[in-house]
Amino acid sequence: MIRFECDYTEGAHPRIIERLAATNLEQTPGYGVDEYCERARGYIKEACNAPDADVHFLVGGTQANTVVIKSILRPHQGVLCAATGHINCHETGAIEAMGHKVLGIVNDDGKLRAEQIRKAYDDHWNDATHEHIVQPGMVYISHPTENGTTYTKSELTAISQVCRELGLPLFMDGARMGYGVMAQGADLTLADIANLCDVFYIGGTKVGALFGEAVVITKPELKKDFRYFIKQHGGMLAKGRLLGIQFDVLFEDGLYFEISKHAVEQAMRIRSAFAAKGVKMRYDSMTNQQFPILSDEVLAKLGEKYAYSFWEKMDDTTSAVRFCTSWATKTEAVDELLADIDRVL
Amino acid sequence: MIRFECDYTEGAHPRIIERLAATNLEQTPGYGVDEYCERARGYIKEACNAPDADVHFLVGGTQANTVVIKSILRPHQGVLCAATGHINCHETGAIEAMGHKVLGIVNDDGKLRAEQIRKAYDDHWNDATHEHIVQPGMVYISHPTENGTTYTKSELTAISQVCRELGLPLFMDGARMGYGVMAQGADLTLADIANLCDVFYIGGTKVGALFGEAVVITKPELKKDFRYFIKQHGGMLAKGRLLGIQFDVLFEDGLYFEISKHAVEQAMRIRSAFAAKGVKMRYDSMTNQQFPILSDEVLAKLGEKYAYSFWEKMDDTTSAVRFCTSWATKTEAVDELLADIDRVL
Amino acid sequence: MIRFECDYTEGAHPRIIERLAATNLEQTPGYGVDEYCERARGYIKEACNAPDADVHFLVGGTQANTVVIKSILRPHQGVLCAATGHINCHETGAIEAMGHKVLGIVNDDGKLRAEQIRKAYDDHWNDATHEHIVQPGMVYISHPTENGTTYTKSELTAISQVCRELGLPLFMDGARMGYGVMAQGADLTLADIANLCDVFYIGGTKVGALFGEAVVITKPELKKDFRYFIKQHGGMLAKGRLLGIQFDVLFEDGLYFEISKHAVEQAMRIRSAFAAKGVKMRYDSMTNQQFPILSDEVLAKLGEKYAYSFWEKMDDTTSAVRFCTSWATKTEAVDELLADIDRVL
Amino acid sequence: MIRFECDYTEGAHPRIIERLAATNLEQTPGYGVDEYCERARGYIKEACNAPDADVHFLVGGTQANTVVIKSILRPHQGVLCAATGHINCHETGAIEAMGHKVLGIVNDDGKLRAEQIRKAYDDHWNDATHEHIVQPGMVYISHPTENGTTYTKSELTAISQVCRELGLPLFMDGARMGYGVMAQGADLTLADIANLCDVFYIGGTKVGALFGEAVVITKPELKKDFRYFIKQHGGMLAKGRLLGIQFDVLFEDGLYFEISKHAVEQAMRIRSAFAAKGVKMRYDSMTNQQFPILSDEVLAKLGEKYAYSFWEKMDDTTSAVRFCTSWATKTEAVDELLADIDRVL
Repeated sequence: MIRFECDYTEGAHPRIIERLAATNLEQTPGYGVDEYCERARGYIKEACNAPDADVHFLVGGTQANTVVIKSILRPHQGVLCAATGHINCHETGAIEAMGHKVLGIVNDDGKLRAEQIRKAYDDHWNDATHEHIVQPGMVYISHPTENGTTYTKSELTAISQVCRELGLPLFMDGARMGYGVMAQGADLTLADIANLCDVFYIGGTKVGALFGEAVVITKPELKKDFRYFIKQHGGMLAKGRLLGIQFDVLFEDGLYFEISKHAVEQAMRIRSAFAAKGVKMRYDSMTNQQFPILSDEVLAKLGEKYAYSFWEKMDDTTSAVRFCTSWATKTEAVDELLADIDRVL
Repeated sequence: MIRFECDYTEGAHPRIIERLAATNLEQTPGYGVDEYCERARGYIKEACNAPDADVHFLVGGTQANTVVIKSILRPHQGVLCAATGHINCHETGAIEAMGHKVLGIVNDDGKLRAEQIRKAYDDHWNDATHEHIVQPGMVYISHPTENGTTYTKSELTAISQVCRELGLPLFMDGARMGYGVMAQGADLTLADIANLCDVFYIGGTKVGALFGEAVVITKPELKKDFRYFIKQHGGMLAKGRLLGIQFDVLFEDGLYFEISKHAVEQAMRIRSAFAAKGVKMRYDSMTNQQFPILSDEVLAKLGEKYAYSFWEKMDDTTSAVRFCTSWATKTEAVDELLADIDRVL
Repeated sequence: MIRFECDYTEGAHPRIIERLAATNLEQTPGYGVDEYCERARGYIKEACNAPDADVHFLVGGTQANTVVIKSILRPHQGVLCAATGHINCHETGAIEAMGHKVLGIVNDDGKLRAEQIRKAYDDHWNDATHEHIVQPGMVYISHPTENGTTYTKSELTAISQVCRELGLPLFMDGARMGYGVMAQGADLTLADIANLCDVFYIGGTKVGALFGEAVVITKPELKKDFRYFIKQHGGMLAKGRLLGIQFDVLFEDGLYFEISKHAVEQAMRIRSAFAAKGVKMRYDSMTNQQFPILSDEVLAKLGEKYAYSFWEKMDDTTSAVRFCTSWATKTEAVDELLADIDRVL
Repeated sequence: MIRFECDYTEGAHPRIIERLAATNLEQTPGYGVDEYCERARGYIKEACNAPDADVHFLVGGTQANTVVIKSILRPHQGVLCAATGHINCHETGAIEAMGHKVLGIVNDDGKLRAEQIRKAYDDHWNDATHEHIVQPGMVYISHPTENGTTYTKSELTAISQVCRELGLPLFMDGARMGYGVMAQGADLTLADIANLCDVFYIGGTKVGALFGEAVVITKPELKKDFRYFIKQHGGMLAKGRLLGIQFDVLFEDGLYFEISKHAVEQAMRIRSAFAAKGVKMRYDSMTNQQFPILSDEVLAKLGEKYAYSFWEKMDDTTSAVRFCTSWATKTEAVDELLADIDRVL
């Protein structure tokens, strides 16, 4: 079985494993104040062109989303997001468990628009009974989205402007950040994101690390006491250096971007192969996730050899499914898939 | 200004005020264990034909909803309800503040269908990633709904059967219960409701009392420790007898039903008056809330003399609004409104 | 049975009942924005010499404590209070249910000292692992305390100064406020309290009203969006005027203070009667609660005719109990108690 | 600087690093259902003689404590524990953040006694106002405790019997479990613990792993839906196999016990060295943490070369401090410390 079902089927980039081995018996202080964490923070701030940002390392994405959102909202506030947002769909209600309503806005492509944010805000404040309604308190977007789509610089600029005008902190979930900034045709850099968002994270789990997400806080008001929130939520790793070391390796010389590029290239090969056969895609993704719409028969045949994940039933005999590549995807594995697409379709 | 904007513009039925005055200087123990509360519990259990039920008195509807739902769900569970449900729209996220996602199901009339409940349940359990999704843990319905619509005995029976089959406790918000059971053409009695639901409440605030909701728990498993929840949520009135006395008066000889009937009759007069002029109604309500769709011009004219509440913009020049009657609505006030409808339209 | 067990055994001062009856059928808007509430707010601000304060009416004390504290703290913060504080002991964990630790400081008399607050604050910030510990975020005191003791102006001034220096909002629970400001020998006025605290409430439930607490917010930063919190917590009474009318009556011409004085005078008579017999008091209370330490034998005899509440076992044969007076206590009832004290002891 | 400040200064046992490297590029399904996790579960159940237990892998101790406790308690319940318990002191209020009061019982040695549990339970239920008080809903103990002390088999049996009699689930925090079962003179095995507790965890973070705690649930009623809780709390590692692989290595042939024994032996050497100089210990610990009471002068001298952690000021010139050994402590490092103790004292 060759696995394309998700982007976390392997361990970590070999250079990370090597570094963990090499530093293994060194003694460092705990909880993320060691020199490896410090150095990784420096690299990340440099990559983001955000020298004054605070950088914190958390273990996973649900945890990062929960901790960031909890640290920003007051109890009567909710978070605006696309209805397809990860926090609304696949975190077992983690945000609600912290007391906050997720204010989902329906869209088909997983993206939020500046005008939708403004409308949601206006609808709230124009309602005579607004005190009986959850107040929009911040905005959450994913880049790339859960559907593989991405924001352009112009779109994110528009969102950022609305958010700043309305006083809504803007938070970007970057669990697949690498695949977003290296997406085919992407014009949005980490520095743009740091400039336009108030807080975001750079995902490691799905982009080369064993685990770990680097939360970057650029808005000064959001920095206060953030480490308390990490600890309270069980996110402060005793051996914090494990996160520092991994991000060190990923950011010291551009490895993060290089391996992301590889994943996107392999995804584009898959995309082209399906397109060549006239297969429609459920979403227009230029990132590592591809969502072909295929007949049950074709899916059965491909399923004998490849693991993909089911996405959505389109009609009685066809479904959208997801094929993911990652930093670890082997070119030969994609070669094989391409041959089989050619054969089966 | 004659107020039809809601059903809580006056104080209480005069007999309640009299009884409060008459008992005012008696000494009773606190927190709802006095003899007035006990007597009211007896009357209510009788009216519900539910001798083994537990009856608790709470101050208001948001509080009752929150306390009941919190007492039932485990932390990873959410509550299924119509997307228009009060808990989803007008309680400032009280349910989320307790940690639970409200799982809203979209409908146009405010009602939930048995098959929708089954589908939501099946969708959850059939999803391979269901542990990443909030688990449906109970069902909330309103009767009448926020839109004035009601359940028939057959509809509620179907819902009840599905809920029992699937192990989902069924909770009915009866903030306007009187107007539901006395709705024109209604075939659903309090006894039916007690039989088909696991917990529900009989609203006093909108039906003759100064304030107060009587929560009736029929399912034995839901009774345990309920008073702790009331207290923790700030719902245990020190002078609990105030609630007992009010429900005593309302239920000792059928006053609750009698005044509800009056409100419905007045609402039907308003409904007919609009219908006679060809005015469409936003919802098909046989209860005390009526939702005519009127032009801005007509609304402006009526608004000079009558308070109503805005509901929804239908197009550029027309809106649905709400006219409410209540136990306190004077026949003469409705006479006057009818004359003005006739004049203005 | 003559009840001295608590201060909420009767209904409301007769003038309140009269006013509720007189206004009963008037129509007013809901949720506390009616003219009665407005007028009551005016009287209270005048009584507090706090023209810029925000005044909100809530139904009960646990609710008021929860809503105020929830509106102030961030999730990683806790509330400093005396270990005997109501929020720490008798609210079924309402504060923890909102996510916050109650940081109880042990004292014997129910009062907190300025230096204890400073020490708790310093202990936190001096701890190298303070991010692993709940951060003190505000201070809660009761006046009078749960033990009947009170703060002097000098004590409260010292507390206020420390709190302001350390940036800790100061919240006073005034469930029995009337009995505190009218305590024998009291030198602390409502105006002092408004000046020295950031938020406090004036209890109605135990001082003449059917129910209701008036929350007064003097610190501008704490005012924002407070009504959302009230609604979310189920504390926004639909017929908000019920609270306005009651506080109107209590504050329009000093009734609140007058009836509080009466309660304290009756309590002082009980105190003197016990003292004359050499009975020790558990706490040195100059307010409406008295805590004599009596033998089981004496308690059994008094218990035949009077309801008191058990407080604490002192040794094998004696206990501290509580006798409460209130605005409703009849002089003749105390006469009778005094005669029986004289007889039994 | 030689670090004895805590037991998480190094990475992982070299065999773990080797295994992670060896399996790094294998593809496995995510979220803990891979074969490595399955195998590790088998080894652990065997070590615990608990074939029917459920075993879940979580990332850290605070997370494990929070998730377990949240999954057990109803909202009005709290958790009984020693006042020194980690959940009460050093988790930034994580339990309260989930809505539950920590019901700390004061002791000097960090242990809870069976009779204290019974008393707390009885005190609650005997209180006439118990509905106003947080209900004890479970018991939390640490083994070894935060102070290095341990339970004997007889003590744990007594606790277990009381808990079962009273219906209180018993949860053991085993963040340092290895050092507890291998403590000098210990008579309590993993199998005993599995038999006497309802849920517990076996700490990896402090005993040889990079990170990770294995939660073992033996009581069938506590197993339901546990994975939802893990996910909701951000504890479900995408690459779950990282945890499986580590516990595989630790339990496949007894490495966990062997390295724990080493740490205890080194700690005993330190203990003896201090004892030989007449140094008193703050707690009577037979595990990897030692708490000598030393003068500021001695501490300053030792501090030039060794990192220890401050514990408690005893008087003006002496303090209790903590020296920790671990699986990674080098014999030569302890040799050096012993020589310096001999020299300085």
